[in-house]
Amino acid sequence: MDKFAKMALLADFYGPLLTEKQRNVWDLHYQQDLSLSEIAEVEEISRQAVHDLLKRTERILLEYEEKLGLVDRFLLEREKLQAIQSLMESFKESDFASTEGKEICSLARQRIAELLESVNL
Amino acid sequence: MDKFAKMALLADFYGPLLTEKQRNVWDLHYQQDLSLSEIAEVEEISRQAVHDLLKRTERILLEYEEKLGLVDRFLLEREKLQAIQSLMESFKESDFASTEGKEICSLARQRIAELLESVNL
Repeated sequence: MDKFAKMALLADFYGPLLTEKQRNVWDLHYQQDLSLSEIAEVEEISRQAVHDLLKRTERILLEYEEKLGLVDRFLLEREKLQAIQSLMESFKESDFASTEGKEICSLARQRIAELLESVNL
Repeated sequence: MDKFAKMALLADFYGPLLTEKQRNVWDLHYQQDLSLSEIAEVEEISRQAVHDLLKRTERILLEYEEKLGLVDRFLLEREKLQAIQSLMESFKESDFASTEGKEICSLARQRIAELLESVNL
């Protein structure tokens, strides 16, 4: 996972614990992909101040993750769920002897897909 | 879910954000089931101080949950996963036409059970 994806995930989990300013600048950089200079202009602060704010916010988010580990836990669960999904996809039409069996399989696949979608931030 | 179970779950998620004293008194009450008077004796503080500490800790935990909603999210995901488990249990032996199909089903059930176990705190 690249740094931007990891940072976005951290903010998805712990963002509500940041101040409005921290969240705002974080969002401009990591979600809307603005450069430090562009953010400096928008926020009317120096480029260095943007840099410091982002570094400080990153430290805060990483500290929360170090204590709570919820992003790691989430990624691990998603991985396991994806493995189950793959397994369910490996059923072949010819594996079933009954319409009920096929229907259960189809419904289970759908429910797993929905669950994965709901945990995909 | 009763209050004790809910409080235990909140502490499981957000406990690392509490101070050692808060966590300790919380644990004595909600995990080890000690009364306020018993905790007062152990901690050498008044019963009223124990009561206030527990109330304050509860407020802190509920504030984190209000902001992050991770316990609710966790409970919802677990519920959906249990529904998938039930669905997989509804396969009958006679639904399958091949050994491979039966094996996939058995493995998927096992993986779902493992995932549920790992999210059961």
